[in-house]
Amino acid sequence: MPLVKERVRALFRKALFPNNKCLAVADLGCSSGPNSLLAISWIIEAISGLCSQTGRSLPEVLVFLNDLPGNDFNSVFSSLPSFYENQKEKNGVESNCYISAMPGSFHGRLFPSRSLHFVHSSYSVHWLSQVPELPVQNKGSIYMASTSSPSIFEAYLKQFQRDFKNLLSSRAQEIVPGGEIFLTFMSRSIPDPTSKDCCLFWWWLSRSLVEMAEEDENCVFDKLKSGRNVTDCIRSVTEPILRSHFGEGLLMDDLFKRYARLVGDHLSVEKTKCFNIAVSMTRK
Amino acid sequence: MPLVKERVRALFRKALFPNNKCLAVADLGCSSGPNSLLAISWIIEAISGLCSQTGRSLPEVLVFLNDLPGNDFNSVFSSLPSFYENQKEKNGVESNCYISAMPGSFHGRLFPSRSLHFVHSSYSVHWLSQVPELPVQNKGSIYMASTSSPSIFEAYLKQFQRDFKNLLSSRAQEIVPGGEIFLTFMSRSIPDPTSKDCCLFWWWLSRSLVEMAEEDENCVFDKLKSGRNVTDCIRSVTEPILRSHFGEGLLMDDLFKRYARLVGDHLSVEKTKCFNIAVSMTRK
Repeated sequence: MPLVKERVRALFRKALFPNNKCLAVADLGCSSGPNSLLAISWIIEAISGLCSQTGRSLPEVLVFLNDLPGNDFNSVFSSLPSFYENQKEKNGVESNCYISAMPGSFHGRLFPSRSLHFVHSSYSVHWLSQVPELPVQNKGSIYMASTSSPSIFEAYLKQFQRDFKNLLSSRAQEIVPGGEIFLTFMSRSIPDPTSKDCCLFWWWLSRSLVEMAEEDENCVFDKLKSGRNVTDCIRSVTEPILRSHFGEGLLMDDLFKRYARLVGDHLSVEKTKCFNIAVSMTRK
Repeated sequence: MPLVKERVRALFRKALFPNNKCLAVADLGCSSGPNSLLAISWIIEAISGLCSQTGRSLPEVLVFLNDLPGNDFNSVFSSLPSFYENQKEKNGVESNCYISAMPGSFHGRLFPSRSLHFVHSSYSVHWLSQVPELPVQNKGSIYMASTSSPSIFEAYLKQFQRDFKNLLSSRAQEIVPGGEIFLTFMSRSIPDPTSKDCCLFWWWLSRSLVEMAEEDENCVFDKLKSGRNVTDCIRSVTEPILRSHFGEGLLMDDLFKRYARLVGDHLSVEKTKCFNIAVSMTRK
């Protein structure tokens, strides 16, 4: 959060925006839920803070929230009236902020050429545009795992490189010279891509799915101990994907009970750390 | 439709858009359903027709679909991938069209200053921002009716004038000099505001509501003859409003059966005409 604000302030000082110009901002992969407007509120705070320090009047800000067309934008929009109200209270004045949605894949073009000043994306650009074509079966796993063959790793790497290149070259056309892009990634502490730092979530999920497939359907678990927070967090991200892949037949409560048990088992013996990378780039 | 296309072509000829500039368009009150992208498709057609005639390359077009935050934008967005696909087929090339949504009331500011070239709105600006405060009870009616007192007419007129002034002064700030706004209104053939030309729909609706309130709830009608088309059309517009006003308790099927009967009775003795006004204005 402080990093995002710092970049916005730096961008603002570059004076890309004469007094009558509007600052155009995009948030890629906004999703829907309580965090959908979080980055936007930081950006507005950074600008209004700087303006009140320097005595400048607040510029107009045009915001594009982006996610895939299937995202629940209705629920994001329903929270807008209270968001505007809060902003007004916090900043003392109307913030002149206009929040719109631009549905589409950030792996391709989304916006007109040279139309954006600041692009933000948090925990989104690691999502691939598709499951890569796998040269061999990735048995028992839904992602790279320590049991996967090296060619599986290669396939995922190539897919990410293709997707990330498309993302950057699209944004390069959309961002004005001097404009910036700020990305936050999930990361890991060591080079091994099967490191627990980033793959443990997926291992638990594939383990839970495999269990469900293997077991008698009347089986009931009573070993659930802890890890509800982790499970809720992962469920909010993965349930829509699993639902779209497996349809309504998949018993989500059952799956995430198993998931919570695996997390609980793990947390009782080991502390889990999250690693992140934040990258800021300026358009030449 | 031909009028909208004509205005877009005229606007385009004004050369407000140097080759690298993007055309920004807004459709106010887009609603959700098969017609939500209709005006946008006309506008793109007009531009691509003109470009293929003159050998110019297609400009980028940034579209803002507008309606209240409670509109079902999710369903509009779900139709976007096939819309883009169709446009590509029709025009032979990628149309460089970026369709976003800007939720909010068109009675106030929606967009940054001087950010739009063309604003379109069809059958929307007659909606008031609120039911005006009525000086006397408007008994048995939900709108102006021949039984309403003159002060009721006055209250509705004042509300419309206030709302329409706000709409125009907001757009005047948002449209670039030389840009245009194109509005289509429901209208009537004579000055009398209770004229059947525009109020018959509402009279049928209030009559149906009053009937339901008065009658025994087990009563069944068997007099339904025709008018289903009119009823479906009015139902698509009014059901969400009635639902939000009366809650889930109102029996919509019952109400619109009654409505269809009233329409059917009417159509069997008289032909109904619709009158429209189209207004095009240019920003000084």
